[in-house]
Amino acid sequence: MSARRIDLNADLGEGFGPWRMGDDAALLDIVTSANVACGFHAGDPDIMVETAAAALARGVAIGAHPGFHDLRGFGRNRIEECPRRLERDIAYQIGALQACAALAGARVTHVKAHGALANLSNEDETVAAALARAVAGVDRRLALVVMPGLAAERAGERAGLPLVREIYADRAYAEDGTLAPRSGPGAVIHDADEAAERVARMVGEEAVFTVGGRRIPVAIETVCVHGDNPAALAMARAVRARLERAGLSLRPFAGQGAEPER
Amino acid sequence: MSARRIDLNADLGEGFGPWRMGDDAALLDIVTSANVACGFHAGDPDIMVETAAAALARGVAIGAHPGFHDLRGFGRNRIEECPRRLERDIAYQIGALQACAALAGARVTHVKAHGALANLSNEDETVAAALARAVAGVDRRLALVVMPGLAAERAGERAGLPLVREIYADRAYAEDGTLAPRSGPGAVIHDADEAAERVARMVGEEAVFTVGGRRIPVAIETVCVHGDNPAALAMARAVRARLERAGLSLRPFAGQGAEPER
Amino acid sequence: MSARRIDLNADLGEGFGPWRMGDDAALLDIVTSANVACGFHAGDPDIMVETAAAALARGVAIGAHPGFHDLRGFGRNRIEECPRRLERDIAYQIGALQACAALAGARVTHVKAHGALANLSNEDETVAAALARAVAGVDRRLALVVMPGLAAERAGERAGLPLVREIYADRAYAEDGTLAPRSGPGAVIHDADEAAERVARMVGEEAVFTVGGRRIPVAIETVCVHGDNPAALAMARAVRARLERAGLSLRPFAGQGAEPER
Amino acid sequence: MSARRIDLNADLGEGFGPWRMGDDAALLDIVTSANVACGFHAGDPDIMVETAAAALARGVAIGAHPGFHDLRGFGRNRIEECPRRLERDIAYQIGALQACAALAGARVTHVKAHGALANLSNEDETVAAALARAVAGVDRRLALVVMPGLAAERAGERAGLPLVREIYADRAYAEDGTLAPRSGPGAVIHDADEAAERVARMVGEEAVFTVGGRRIPVAIETVCVHGDNPAALAMARAVRARLERAGLSLRPFAGQGAEPER
Repeated sequence: MSARRIDLNADLGEGFGPWRMGDDAALLDIVTSANVACGFHAGDPDIMVETAAAALARGVAIGAHPGFHDLRGFGRNRIEECPRRLERDIAYQIGALQACAALAGARVTHVKAHGALANLSNEDETVAAALARAVAGVDRRLALVVMPGLAAERAGERAGLPLVREIYADRAYAEDGTLAPRSGPGAVIHDADEAAERVARMVGEEAVFTVGGRRIPVAIETVCVHGDNPAALAMARAVRARLERAGLSLRPFAGQGAEPER
Repeated sequence: MSARRIDLNADLGEGFGPWRMGDDAALLDIVTSANVACGFHAGDPDIMVETAAAALARGVAIGAHPGFHDLRGFGRNRIEECPRRLERDIAYQIGALQACAALAGARVTHVKAHGALANLSNEDETVAAALARAVAGVDRRLALVVMPGLAAERAGERAGLPLVREIYADRAYAEDGTLAPRSGPGAVIHDADEAAERVARMVGEEAVFTVGGRRIPVAIETVCVHGDNPAALAMARAVRARLERAGLSLRPFAGQGAEPER
Repeated sequence: MSARRIDLNADLGEGFGPWRMGDDAALLDIVTSANVACGFHAGDPDIMVETAAAALARGVAIGAHPGFHDLRGFGRNRIEECPRRLERDIAYQIGALQACAALAGARVTHVKAHGALANLSNEDETVAAALARAVAGVDRRLALVVMPGLAAERAGERAGLPLVREIYADRAYAEDGTLAPRSGPGAVIHDADEAAERVARMVGEEAVFTVGGRRIPVAIETVCVHGDNPAALAMARAVRARLERAGLSLRPFAGQGAEPER
Repeated sequence: MSARRIDLNADLGEGFGPWRMGDDAALLDIVTSANVACGFHAGDPDIMVETAAAALARGVAIGAHPGFHDLRGFGRNRIEECPRRLERDIAYQIGALQACAALAGARVTHVKAHGALANLSNEDETVAAALARAVAGVDRRLALVVMPGLAAERAGERAGLPLVREIYADRAYAEDGTLAPRSGPGAVIHDADEAAERVARMVGEEAVFTVGGRRIPVAIETVCVHGDNPAALAMARAVRARLERAGLSLRPFAGQGAEPER
């Protein structure tokens, strides 16, 4: 009987031109899926091709990480745009990464929204629907990474997309299953071992635990970690080690071994 | 016995944000292939999706029209970039259009370089090779539109790409088969009937005729026309009418009827 | 005794790179103040210098027209940014225009916010304060164009800036003195003569009249007109002619004859 | 009798949005003049205001560091643009920094071209003239930093600009007084003490020494150092210490104490 599998995902390729962010090489030794910036909030064609090549070389799955068209704000500012434009911007970014991945001999297997776009897609049904339409319009086989219980998951389901539910390694959950606001006490977990322990428990029980102690059963297929700084990397390593110790098989949720289909 | 076929291509979707350029609707009633700007020198995801949808509705083939990343200069300024970056920028643009076309239910069948990138790809073997690598790296079935006898044609051949040779309706040819410099006398044809007559002769004899009177046999599969202003549109219409009168079948060089393959 | 003076202002230089918007040459024969886009939502250094030169040649005052950094959205989408960043973005744009005007031998005399930034500066005290800080930080002698009674006017007053109150030629006013929402009946005036008559009455009585018939006394120093299309130009001409007939002296609110002070 | 003065300049504020480059805080403790990126190849209004404020706080003179409009290429790629556009782009950048500096209570005292624009302005008289026209058009009191003997110096002289001649701490000189190509042996000095010794000799003798041993007398008012990495910072510190030991007074070439004149 094969071990239960779990995926570890992180955002990569978040530089632009001469600038870099995070230690991608170190992260690629830890995660099993990479969310690659597509040039709108970070990333450029050089970085995208090189990140795809590095991911492919280590068996890490490649996903598109579309965001608002706002390089200077790193996609963190909300922009009031019509959903139709968002849908098209997201499709554009996915296609651009598909082509960059193809140059590297790799293919894109999933999509995860970035920053303010991700937040909006969790809160706003019309933005969530635009995200799902974009992914489905480009390729229905692309998996959509979502937080369980929120608008993006519902939109992805309605669009018939393969869904991958994720939990956050370093964030506490509010009573409704959303992330507790960063400003609250204990909302952000800073201790690597504590984060690893929490992740192991959530994955093991297939549930998230709220700050108030509630247990909310959810499907969990991937765990989001970060690599912006040495502490984040250390936490990512601790999470991975803890999951391996628990007997889980760390593998991309999407079958990276499959033949490119384009 | 079926009539010999010829394609008529033009650049479309050359607006950005609130700005438009040319009369795309009128052009789509004339041409059989549209070269769609991909966001680097013109075009944005909205315009790309809408241009692809309009082309599809009229049976016009959709091609990527990648250019230098220079919106303000409309891709007309040469930028000294390493060929590796150019290759990746071109791939990025093709992929972005593929996804936008997919949103519109259409697919991309060809690639034609724009402006300064096109000129460089005709003159410089390393740029030509970068263009060919980009197209082949994204999808070897994409046709590359080239001027006969220049660097891009050779690079496309070496890369094993389907090639489509084009002539220009409104330009005279120098003795070596390149376009005569715009500054020279008679280099740009302004009279619609004269242009139509020239095109009919070149297509009929499968040759270009130089300003000095030389006849250079070349394969001709498409004729490039413009739609920036009423005079250009009138010339495009005259060229089409003249080719139809000559018994040619105006059709996209690429089989637009084929099923999307992505 | 000299005639009472009134200013007529419009947005100019709203092209970018190869694209143009509106008929600036025609507008410059009508208005007395030009609000010049500064490169963030429209405009580029070439257009800015040329617009400043054309304005100077006709004695039209030159103002900075800063907007959100969103070329594709033409500054019409609201972006959630911290006020500090807005302040700096506005200052940057003003300074850029000052230098472009200096190249043309002209100088900038006023500032008027554009699009979503203007709307926000009328509604949100922190955005209004950021606008006023930016203008005052660059040069306290720059006049700020504001709608009477709203947040930007109050912020400008607190900052000690010279203020210029404006009314709109083509818009009806709600009971609170703000513009009636475009969606409502009669909110946008399309008839040139009606607009001219309304403007003459508002300027003559120094009051705006609401859709409900209320009369709100306000200072009026400038009238905003548009030049995006032939109908707008015709309305602008009608407004100017009507004000001249009423014996008003059409002149820039700011003394354009003054020596450049930089 | 007062000590002879010398200036030490470096490029600062070369981040963008979320990204940073170099250790500006450390550099500001070493140099006496800062060349601040103006948003075209690096820098944004936030960074520009903050860099100006930090420079002002340490008595470091603030200069505009205009470059090609090429964020991704960091202004290092040559772009074939008409000199008129370059002139306007440079003026735009200077004005933008002037306004950002004004927000910080500071003022801009000099201009130094960046990257490919700097190289072109040293080689090409029309580009040099465009640079000089831009500076003079914005404010004739701005000093232009130039390499002695090249096109930018001549253009600045003709334009009547205050000129500041600079030498490079880490580069060898060719026989004609230009920088020896980086690819040649010994072209780049990596040893901090060697660089400090060379600088002290050049400044002391008011001459540069070529790789072939030639001595070319030149005026030297500033020394360019770098801060991209710890080794560059160490070299900058060594150069400063060596110049102080030689009894020179390290001070901005431009009188930072003067009242803002805008």
